[in-house]
Amino acid sequence: MMVNAPIAIRPAFIAIDWGTTNRRAYAIAADGAVMDMMRDDKGVLAVPREAFAGEVAAIRARLGDVPILCAGMVGSTRGWVEVPYRMCPAGLDALVEGLVWVEPGRTAIVPGLSFTAGDSSDVMRGEEVQLLGAVAAGLAPADAVLCQPGTHCKWAKVRGGVVADFRTAMTGEMFALLKAHSLLGDFLTGTVIDGPAFRDGLALAQDDRLLSSLFGERAGVVLGRRDASETAARVSGLLIGADVREQDLVAGEEVHILADAALGILYAAAVTAAGGTPVLIDSHIAFSAGITAIWKAIDGR
Amino acid sequence: MMVNAPIAIRPAFIAIDWGTTNRRAYAIAADGAVMDMMRDDKGVLAVPREAFAGEVAAIRARLGDVPILCAGMVGSTRGWVEVPYRMCPAGLDALVEGLVWVEPGRTAIVPGLSFTAGDSSDVMRGEEVQLLGAVAAGLAPADAVLCQPGTHCKWAKVRGGVVADFRTAMTGEMFALLKAHSLLGDFLTGTVIDGPAFRDGLALAQDDRLLSSLFGERAGVVLGRRDASETAARVSGLLIGADVREQDLVAGEEVHILADAALGILYAAAVTAAGGTPVLIDSHIAFSAGITAIWKAIDGR
Repeated sequence: MMVNAPIAIRPAFIAIDWGTTNRRAYAIAADGAVMDMMRDDKGVLAVPREAFAGEVAAIRARLGDVPILCAGMVGSTRGWVEVPYRMCPAGLDALVEGLVWVEPGRTAIVPGLSFTAGDSSDVMRGEEVQLLGAVAAGLAPADAVLCQPGTHCKWAKVRGGVVADFRTAMTGEMFALLKAHSLLGDFLTGTVIDGPAFRDGLALAQDDRLLSSLFGERAGVVLGRRDASETAARVSGLLIGADVREQDLVAGEEVHILADAALGILYAAAVTAAGGTPVLIDSHIAFSAGITAIWKAIDGR
Repeated sequence: MMVNAPIAIRPAFIAIDWGTTNRRAYAIAADGAVMDMMRDDKGVLAVPREAFAGEVAAIRARLGDVPILCAGMVGSTRGWVEVPYRMCPAGLDALVEGLVWVEPGRTAIVPGLSFTAGDSSDVMRGEEVQLLGAVAAGLAPADAVLCQPGTHCKWAKVRGGVVADFRTAMTGEMFALLKAHSLLGDFLTGTVIDGPAFRDGLALAQDDRLLSSLFGERAGVVLGRRDASETAARVSGLLIGADVREQDLVAGEEVHILADAALGILYAAAVTAAGGTPVLIDSHIAFSAGITAIWKAIDGR
């Protein structure tokens, strides 16, 4: 005798975007659809090395007993296992080749990317899946400039579908340092939105005098010429404006921005002010597209 | 009957350069000669408002019971009494007019300077005595560019013997923030001297990409392309180079640098790299010359 029972749909795999202070885990179906998601603050700094195996077991218990692909700082010296960077130019195939299986057949970590040119060096871990996923999903063309704002803002050039080069600006970290520890800190408590004060900061960035413009923000308040409630938005505009300015955008150049809505809107305004054309992309879709492409490449092997 | 007794030579006045974290007190003769000096870490942050009177009494007990002129953050909102800024252009006469007597006939505080132009604002407290003293003592000409490196580096233009305008770069504070609180901090413990690593930092500053160059310093170490022991000197060169670059020096322009020897040499190298001509000036002589000029202006009244 047969009864109707609920059909348990198991995901094909789980993807974990495991950063320094947060992590997101996605249960993903064979066709790439995200079936379930969880997010918490168990970033790698909160997880001792010997505790990672238990952490992924707990995630499996919650999202499904399937293979797991991890990306991000989990592959750094402070993570579970250090996974060597892949050097640019690098596409999804390089990420697949560089996978390190920490639990054979069960759990793998995606490598980060490095870029060197002459005297300069750069590294990323986690952003590469989003970047290449955006292209794989058709959210950005195979030749594109992509921007990933955040603590460390990544600017990548994708050429023929591979990451040709990239550069990182410590824009978000700089704002956090100023807010938490500088003489400007008391004035940086306001919310930052894309309003007149933020736009004034973008305009100030065109002076190309970051170190003195920052001091001037405090002096303006001390002299009563500025309202301290505007300082956060002005300084944010100054820093984001300086960041975008450092990229030497060509007039009209499209910049594909992968960010949450609040930060994406600020960078879009800065790109526009610098003469570029911003295109906002959903970074979660980009991540799941990238990690699913990696999954498909190994699933058939 | 007369005996030979030691002759007690009393100073004409005492000058206190009272900063945020340190103070220096000078016993000065009528001809401007410094007879005695003391220095300690009782900056204004270490002195509650009601304790200033006791502090100057203790200094008098040690250096002589004479009038005292104070300059610096002692005249700020966190100091003894808030002394209004004098607006540029301003010379020694403006400082004399703006003196505030906190103990009538006994103790006065020299005002700081403010500068505003269009949207930008700047302030200084304490540096104005050095700047105008350097000119009064003939250490710098009446038309000169002067630079006072430090936590907040001041760049002043003196025209006809008065401070015409100035700008402050938060160069030293930025280095301190990065060292104490940033992801680069672990690498910034080395001593900074004017060597190849510092010069490389100066050269890197010419790229005009401060936010990304800073991140690149860490990436270079992570990738094993740089020795972490060089990072402090490279980042110092990068920041001081950016600071000097923000000043848009004209080729060959003389910059009179008021600083201790170690920092003065670094700024001199940066000025030279930017095409300027550095001239190092003793900042203690400049201060005593400036404060003596103020003393002479009021002593005859």
